[in-house]
Formats: sequence, structure tokens, C-alpha cells
Amino acid sequence: MTEASHASTARPGTVLDLADLHGSLSDPALLSMNLLNEVSERYPDAVSFAPGRPDPGGFAIEDVHRYLRAWTEHVTDGTDQGAETARNRLYQYGRTKGVIQDLVARNLATDENIHVDPETILVTVGCQEAMVLVLRALRADEHDVLLATSPSYVGITGAARLVDLPVVPVDSGTAGIDLDDLAAKVKGAREAGLRPRACYLVPDFANPTGLSLDVPTRHRLLDLAAELDILIIEDNPYGFFGDGAAPKPTLKSLDSGHRVVYLGSYAKTLLPGARIGFVVADQPVVRGGETAGTLADELSKIKSMITVNTPPIAQAVIGGALLENDFALREANRDATARYGERLRHLLDGLAARFPTPSPVGWNRPDGGFFLVVTVPFVADDDLLAYSAKRHKVIWTPMHHFYAAEGGARQLRLSLSSLTPEKIDLGLDRFAALVTDLLERT
Amino acid sequence: MTEASHASTARPGTVLDLADLHGSLSDPALLSMNLLNEVSERYPDAVSFAPGRPDPGGFAIEDVHRYLRAWTEHVTDGTDQGAETARNRLYQYGRTKGVIQDLVARNLATDENIHVDPETILVTVGCQEAMVLVLRALRADEHDVLLATSPSYVGITGAARLVDLPVVPVDSGTAGIDLDDLAAKVKGAREAGLRPRACYLVPDFANPTGLSLDVPTRHRLLDLAAELDILIIEDNPYGFFGDGAAPKPTLKSLDSGHRVVYLGSYAKTLLPGARIGFVVADQPVVRGGETAGTLADELSKIKSMITVNTPPIAQAVIGGALLENDFALREANRDATARYGERLRHLLDGLAARFPTPSPVGWNRPDGGFFLVVTVPFVADDDLLAYSAKRHKVIWTPMHHFYAAEGGARQLRLSLSSLTPEKIDLGLDRFAALVTDLLERT
Repeated sequence: MTEASHASTARPGTVLDLADLHGSLSDPALLSMNLLNEVSERYPDAVSFAPGRPDPGGFAIEDVHRYLRAWTEHVTDGTDQGAETARNRLYQYGRTKGVIQDLVARNLATDENIHVDPETILVTVGCQEAMVLVLRALRADEHDVLLATSPSYVGITGAARLVDLPVVPVDSGTAGIDLDDLAAKVKGAREAGLRPRACYLVPDFANPTGLSLDVPTRHRLLDLAAELDILIIEDNPYGFFGDGAAPKPTLKSLDSGHRVVYLGSYAKTLLPGARIGFVVADQPVVRGGETAGTLADELSKIKSMITVNTPPIAQAVIGGALLENDFALREANRDATARYGERLRHLLDGLAARFPTPSPVGWNRPDGGFFLVVTVPFVADDDLLAYSAKRHKVIWTPMHHFYAAEGGARQLRLSLSSLTPEKIDLGLDRFAALVTDLLERT
Repeated sequence: MTEASHASTARPGTVLDLADLHGSLSDPALLSMNLLNEVSERYPDAVSFAPGRPDPGGFAIEDVHRYLRAWTEHVTDGTDQGAETARNRLYQYGRTKGVIQDLVARNLATDENIHVDPETILVTVGCQEAMVLVLRALRADEHDVLLATSPSYVGITGAARLVDLPVVPVDSGTAGIDLDDLAAKVKGAREAGLRPRACYLVPDFANPTGLSLDVPTRHRLLDLAAELDILIIEDNPYGFFGDGAAPKPTLKSLDSGHRVVYLGSYAKTLLPGARIGFVVADQPVVRGGETAGTLADELSKIKSMITVNTPPIAQAVIGGALLENDFALREANRDATARYGERLRHLLDGLAARFPTPSPVGWNRPDGGFFLVVTVPFVADDDLLAYSAKRHKVIWTPMHHFYAAEGGARQLRLSLSSLTPEKIDLGLDRFAALVTDLLERT
């Protein structure tokens, strides 16, 4: 008797029931991420306004080799000992916090006027891992809750779900965050015996709304967070991509009280395929009243049990790109920023041309970023998306995916980052045909 | 008034209390990982038997470039369309499951006689992320528990702690796993109203014990797991590194009932700095009685919220190395395996020479792998480790780190993987001096 036949006759097979697996696996947030990632692949003929992917521009694989060489030369520094350091750093497991924290710190100082000790930075596998680390640390027990501007990026909702941390939505309003609602939600949560830990938001060109906080609102938010004694989790993937207006200071650059945990990413500004993000967590931590380091030190312990460390090879590629650009990525992204701005204006003009006032179709007008929100006079759900993709060959993202509960039923997100003006026109023609189709049916 | 002075006068600063952060941060398992990672750096003059790091052998940074080119050529396949595919796959976010699953599947078929659909494989950021994914999926509520052979790798204990999943220790015994104890622990847990989900073990050259399961024990474990209806989580980082004896079949290669979740890693066999691991999770999953895919599909949802996807650049480097070696890594590791075997024998001989029978010092005799366990006639704790590092310039790992509760107080782990025979001799001389020192004091 062979081993295989022995096994197959003697042993019952395994079947798992989804009901016996973690609840997140039945949660809309986790299903959303997969749907959004894969819908465009399912309909390759459609024009897709769905993915918030950066445009590869002139990227060539040779860039990866060149970045890697730039980092290698920097570490080698012309010495034999340096060459051995570079070899070991690339080959071996590295420090959990990362091998390019110093380069990230120089980049933050150059581009964002954020000045922090590199030891308060953790280099993560994309910004997503940084979210998981922060939320895992902050979720101590079932009383803890996270606040997040609503509609929210699905990544924060999903990360919260993975660590069993409820999310209390805070209205985005038209200013990016409704501070009165934030205060009310914190008060309400406390009255319910809950412990609000932090408020997550994307202050610049938010996903999915495209909204940005103006400067006075940034100051007021920091004041309010101090008053309420909650942390701010600032996520800043799109900050460079303003269309003309002067960049606004990040919350972290205005933060003198260690109030802000700052999440950054090189996915949109350098190279998604390296999957390099980071978190600045300079909050002091005490244990039994004594100083015990910073939140970054605590996050490092958690990271050691999630990914051990971020692939040094991927860090080295990003490190080389930072070196090659003298740490000035805003400047390095000037062409990309202009390209995204042109696409945004093309999209706004295209909507105005196809839906002249008065129209049952409306939209907001972000001054930068990758996204805008369209309001339609019908329910824009996943079924309509499938119909739209199949029948009209145009894909968009139903806004309901970005709401924890009700909300966004008659709204959809359009992403412009990966579409040429020609594709935008074609996509908008198809979208207009969908609207006509739907209006004729109602 | 400047913004900074406005802020610093108006806003109280943030201080976090460790008591308000997740309990894992005060857990010995998470502190162990950091201690073990950093002790060697703190005492650079010491000979360190602590880290289980692979030996870089002849690794050169140029290898990374060559691997990347091999993968690029493979995907490009001499066509313009292929070149565009390679560029996009390297630049963009990729599928959550990975971009080299097909290459991993061919490697498993070649080296391990494991034949699985590539769609049941997830490429992860090291094997550690795979552990987190599996444990997160299996921990549905507070009744779930994990079984793990004890002493255990700290990574599985830490991952379990992060998802609030208690670990029930199962005696390793002298056979790698005590099957009677496994059956008793499952029975006991069920009687206590708990739900044992899976048993984690390293069947080949376990960390920290160096023990391997013989072939009959492997069959009996699979029979018992089916009888008990629990999953087996097989972790196999060291399987190639047997010292002479014929390789034993992995549990997964004997598994005809989807009973085994298989965790793999290229950290020890190719390149730690790529941080590429994987999980094979071909278990069918049902929802409401209907087939809903495999466990790999569910793990993919979780991964989309932890790291989104594994850096394609790091995957491409490993993919290129697999291609360059015709998927036969066991063969490609022949020199490394011989080197580790030589070091293991040198370590065993060196112990025998320094502690001739009868001796109060004992040790086990693994037939491969990176580790062995030494028993000493005194408590070998972290304080003694610090003393040993400072006074005798030799570092080892206290075994108590690998026990959930009591255990291992008078044992220590020696790792041989990164030490030349000369270093092993020097380290053993120093270790013998430590023993003499301690025996003189008692």
C-alpha cells in the first residue's frame, strides 16, 4: 500500500466553515478591498476609474538596479568595511525598525518640515502595515475605539477589523473633518464607557473624497485633539499632488506635543512595487510612571511578530531613490504632479461638458489628489457596477464601500491617477451613456 | 507668535502608558524576540551562539541584480508585451496572493514532492506573516486555542499573542512531538469548553530543540490529527539541512486530506534580505454549506489588510533565484548543507572534548539543522547571559524564552549556523570557562 492510499482511505478530509473563522472574513471592509483590487482585472475592456494607482510614467526596470546601486555605493562609501556592511545589510535580517530610517528622516525634513529622531521611525511593508501596528498597539481591550473621518479609506477600516477595534465615524463634512462632530463622538463614546484612542484622517486630498483640511482647521484639530486627549493618526500618501495651490503644512509639522502619529508611503511618490511605507511615532511611553521609550519602540515589538523586518532589498531600492533625488521627492514628483493635475482638470471639465447645469449629476471639486466624488440620481451599488462594466465598459467605485454603516448609496468615486486624458474622455462618454440608460429606466 | 510657540504653549503633550497598550507589549514572548535579535549587537566582541541566521557563504550584491534580471527575462519572454508585463508587475501593486506563486509551486514539486495548485499558495513577507495570517483566520473567538510543541519558536508564540490566541503547549519529548500528550491536551481543552484549532510544529530540525520526527511518527501524527479533527501547521525552514541521513517526507507531502497548512521560507535557503516566505493553504472552505473557495482565499483577504501584497521587487529576486536554480534548491544548497553539517559535528565534537563523561553538562545530538540544546547544572537565565557576554564574551540563548510557562531554566540553545569551526572552538572555550566559573561559585 502506498503512503498516499494509506492516508486517503484512513483519514477524513478537512473542511473549514467560514462561520468558524475570524469575523473579519465575513466583513464588508475586507470583501471591499478584494473587489476593488480585482474588478478592473475582470473587465479588461472597460475604462476603469476604480484603482488609485500611480502612473508609472517613465519607470523602467533599470531604475530598480540603479537605485540599488546608489544605495550600495552610499553604504559602501569607498571602503572595504563599508562594502561588507552593505553586503550584510542587504543579505541578512536587519533591525526591526529598518535600515533606511536615517534617509527617511532626511526626506521628511526636506519635503515636509518634519524633524524627528530616526529612532522614532519604523520602515514598514507599505503604509498598511503601519496602520496595523498602530491600531494593534492602541487596542488594549474591548473598550477601545478608533475615530475615523467618514467616508474612510477601506484599509483603515480593515486594519481595525483585524484587531477587533470598532471604528466610530466622524463626518468629513466639506472641510475634510467636522470638528463639532469629532468632539460629540468622543464625548458620546466616553459616556458609553468606551475609550476613544485616536482619530484617523487623510488631511490632504483624502481617499475617497479628495477633500483637504485648510490651515486654520489643521490648527483647530490639533487644539481639539489636545483638549480631548486623543491621538491623531495622519495618513499622507497624496500630499504632493496639489494642483497649483501652495502645499499646506502637515499636522505632524505643526505638532509640538507628540500628538500626531504620522503615516507615510513611497508607493505614490516613488515605486509601489517596493511596498515601502513608514510611521513616525515619537510619543513618549511610560511604564509604572517611568520613561520606557517611545511608541516607535513598542511598534517595533509588534512588527517583530508580524513581518520581523521590512525586506532590506526593498528598503535599499527606496533608499537609493531618496539618495538619487537628494531627499527632495516633492521636486522629483514635479512632472507627475503636473500630470495628475492635468488629468484632474480634464476630468472636471469633462464632467461639466457632459452634465451641464442644471443636471441631476453633481460632483465635488478637489484641488489635487487622485479622487473625486460624483453624486447620481440612482443607487450606485455593486450590481450597478457589474452592469456598468459589462454593458457600458466603464468601471468606478461605489461609495458605499467607504462607509461603515449606511451612506454613499447614490455616490461613486472616480480615480484619475492612472488614466490618460484620452481614456478619461472615453470613460466619461461611457459613464454619460450609463447615466442616460439609467435615467431612461427610472 | 510662531505656530510652534502657539502650539507648545496651548496644547498639553501626549504621554502613553504601557498599561493602556495591547497586552502583547508586556508579554515575555515579544520581549524575547527583541532581546534575541539585539543581544549580539550589544556585545560585538563576544562569540555569539544566539542568532539562527544563515551563513551568507559567497553571497554578493551582484547576485540580487542577476536574480532580478533572470526573473525579468523570464517574464519578458522576448516579447514587447512581455516586457510591459514585467515592467508593470515590478512597478505596480500586484495580486495579494503574489506574483511568483507558480514558481513556488514548481519549487515545492521539485524539492518536496508537494503538488498543489498555485492558487492555494500565498507569498508572504517572511514566514512570520504567514503565521499571523493563519492564526488570525483561525482565532474566531475567545474559545479558540492553538496547540504548539513546547519548547516553541518564539515567532509562533508572539503571533498567537498578537491575535489574542492562547497557546497550549504539547511536549516535544524526544521524538519531536509526544502524541499522547497531544491527544490529552486536545481532550482537556475540549472538556474545558475550548476549541483547539491546530497544532503547530517544525517536524525537521526544530527551533529550538533540533529534534526531527521520524517517518512513522509523521504518519501517526497525521492519523491522530484527522481523528482529533484539528489542523496541522507545518513550519519547514530547515528541512534541507540534514547531516547525511536521507531527507524525510514533509507532512504536507503525506497529506491527502488537506489536513496540513504548510509554511515555507526562502530566508534560510536563498536570501534572508528578500523576506520571502509562503503558505500553502489548500483547505476547502464552505459558507452556509456551499463551497466558498480555499483557506488561501480567506488568508488573502486578511493579507490585503496587513501588507496589501508582498513587495513584487523582493518576489522577483526570489523568483529569479528559483529560475536560475531550476527550482532545485536542495541541490543548490548542497554546499551550504555540507557547511552546516560540518559545523554541527564540530560543535558536537567540541562539547564532547570539553565536557568528557561523566559531566554535569549534557546536550542532545540532532542530525541536522541550526540548533542544539545544552543542559547545565545552574540556572541559565537572562542575567547569566548578560554576565556570560560581558565577562566571558560568549552568547547563547536561555531556553526559558521558548517555554510559555515554566521550563528550560537550566537549559540553553546553541546555534551553529553563522559560526566558523574556529569561532565555534573559541566560543566553546569561553563557554567551558563560564561553566567552570559557575561551578566554582556553587
